Amino acid sequence: MSEYLIGVDLGGTNIRAAAVSPSGSILDRISIPTQAYQGRRAVVKRLIELIRGIEEKFGKKGQRLVGVGMGIAGAIYLNRGLVSRSPNLEGWENFKLMDRLQKYLDFPIFLENDANAIALGEKWKGAGKKAESFCCLTLGTGIGGGIILNNKIWHGVDGTAGEIGHTTLDPQGPPCNCGSNGCLEIYASATGIKRMVLEKIREGNKSSLLKKCQNKIEDITAKMVYDSAKDGDELCQGVFREMGRYLGIGLANLINLLNLELIVLGGKVTQAWNLFIGETRKEIKKRGFTPSAKRTKITKAKLGDDAGVLGAVYFALEKLGGEQRRRQY
Amino acid sequence: MSEYLIGVDLGGTNIRAAAVSPSGSILDRISIPTQAYQGRRAVVKRLIELIRGIEEKFGKKGQRLVGVGMGIAGAIYLNRGLVSRSPNLEGWENFKLMDRLQKYLDFPIFLENDANAIALGEKWKGAGKKAESFCCLTLGTGIGGGIILNNKIWHGVDGTAGEIGHTTLDPQGPPCNCGSNGCLEIYASATGIKRMVLEKIREGNKSSLLKKCQNKIEDITAKMVYDSAKDGDELCQGVFREMGRYLGIGLANLINLLNLELIVLGGKVTQAWNLFIGETRKEIKKRGFTPSAKRTKITKAKLGDDAGVLGAVYFALEKLGGEQRRRQY
Repeated sequence: MSEYLIGVDLGGTNIRAAAVSPSGSILDRISIPTQAYQGRRAVVKRLIELIRGIEEKFGKKGQRLVGVGMGIAGAIYLNRGLVSRSPNLEGWENFKLMDRLQKYLDFPIFLENDANAIALGEKWKGAGKKAESFCCLTLGTGIGGGIILNNKIWHGVDGTAGEIGHTTLDPQGPPCNCGSNGCLEIYASATGIKRMVLEKIREGNKSSLLKKCQNKIEDITAKMVYDSAKDGDELCQGVFREMGRYLGIGLANLINLLNLELIVLGGKVTQAWNLFIGETRKEIKKRGFTPSAKRTKITKAKLGDDAGVLGAVYFALEKLGGEQRRRQY
Repeated sequence: MSEYLIGVDLGGTNIRAAAVSPSGSILDRISIPTQAYQGRRAVVKRLIELIRGIEEKFGKKGQRLVGVGMGIAGAIYLNRGLVSRSPNLEGWENFKLMDRLQKYLDFPIFLENDANAIALGEKWKGAGKKAESFCCLTLGTGIGGGIILNNKIWHGVDGTAGEIGHTTLDPQGPPCNCGSNGCLEIYASATGIKRMVLEKIREGNKSSLLKKCQNKIEDITAKMVYDSAKDGDELCQGVFREMGRYLGIGLANLINLLNLELIVLGGKVTQAWNLFIGETRKEIKKRGFTPSAKRTKITKAKLGDDAGVLGAVYFALEKLGGEQRRRQY
């Protein structure tokens, strides 16, 4: 009877799940909308149904589920299976998710922060395969960060480490949702890109975007900024350069602090790689300590949306018996 | 025959050495000027003489030297005993200090970065005794940083981790010696304090310092700023508040990244503790992620100049056989 695991990536927008072999092959993928606005109870119900559905399907094929790993958009108290804070899942604060799930599901479940799961996924099967110590940033609506030191996630004392998106880069910078201001996230995320574009347009600068959005500038998305930049729009290109510059400052800080061998950048914003990475490297060269900064490789994530589910499975395997177990297959 | 170790703190200004029992009691202290301008050869010669002098003295008492630990103001490649970069010891770049010393000294020698040695000293006998994961900053002429994670120094891949003094806090900030600008060091070090005071005086602000330095403002020292602030000088008090604010931004970044249980602040600048710490805590509260930021304790270092030599001995003991050896005594 062959064994498999389920990896779940529980985000504010989608719940992604995958059936994964212990060697890391994805056997099946499912994605459903989170519909977080329906409240915690409804989301958990759908989550349980989703997992049971996969289990039933693979059970019929004679495959045995050995565990579930779950990456969650929020701060996790690992030892207590507690979601302590989640800006994207309203009402989940201090929610004992683990206890709730174990009431209905009769196999080992392991929780991890979603950005950490992504970092572990890239380590297992992606851009971080050969690295022992690296950082993985996900540049999406916000910015997630996972720090891997000596092959393990650095969780910090409460499990909340890795919040590079909320390090201050400019004390006079614009406000951030987190209550601070001038955070990396307000420059180098999709939200940050939109903010910078709107700011420049409101200052009276011209852009082809104005026509595209029929002057409803609130409708502008980061994707539209990207498309216009590719089409030669100077304002949009300038915004990506500025975004790249701030990203470089944040990464140089990370390098000077932790002297990492690699930084992996993932998330939708990295589609615009060529539009920002030059400025990023320039800032790192200027602000990073040698020799550390010279040797740190900056590279693109490889796994896309699969990183989170794979990393969650990797984490579950570690907890289930670690290296030994993975090597066995 | 009782055993002891020698701890050395090799700085740009002084070489401090101490004979230390394996349980961490300081048996003897010696300090001589580094006189780095005489060049590497002369400094190394004096260093060897210093160590031999201690060995002779304790040898007469029938005590046996088991090892030497050395903290050095520079980036150290640990595995190769190499000083790769040292802003305060000119001409020491890529110097194989370990090989040179072992030619003349016939006992185990271990090198460490000086800020890391200080962090280890505070962990062994000082403010970090009970903490497993913390950061120790030395606010002196510059800013040194040592990061301890799970009871061990985080060295990074090259041994250069911990440069929190050279993380950027303001991309529009004044230039730093490191080639970047807006680094924490230009705000929260003695040099930074002097810089801020001169800037404000040149802008035409009044201060009792002008009289004290007889209008030779280049003669102003951080100590004079401190004394004037204590005497009620508003400009000087304002500078310490500003310094505290920037320090708080840097510490909040550190907390959000690493979720540490403790931050230890040492160095001469911490004499002015009450003049800046309020602003520091305010910034951490504003910018630090809860729950991490709430639980991180900010505390004063306890060991002063002894931290470096004690930490160097601690490091040597670790290398010589670790926990076991220390417990044995």
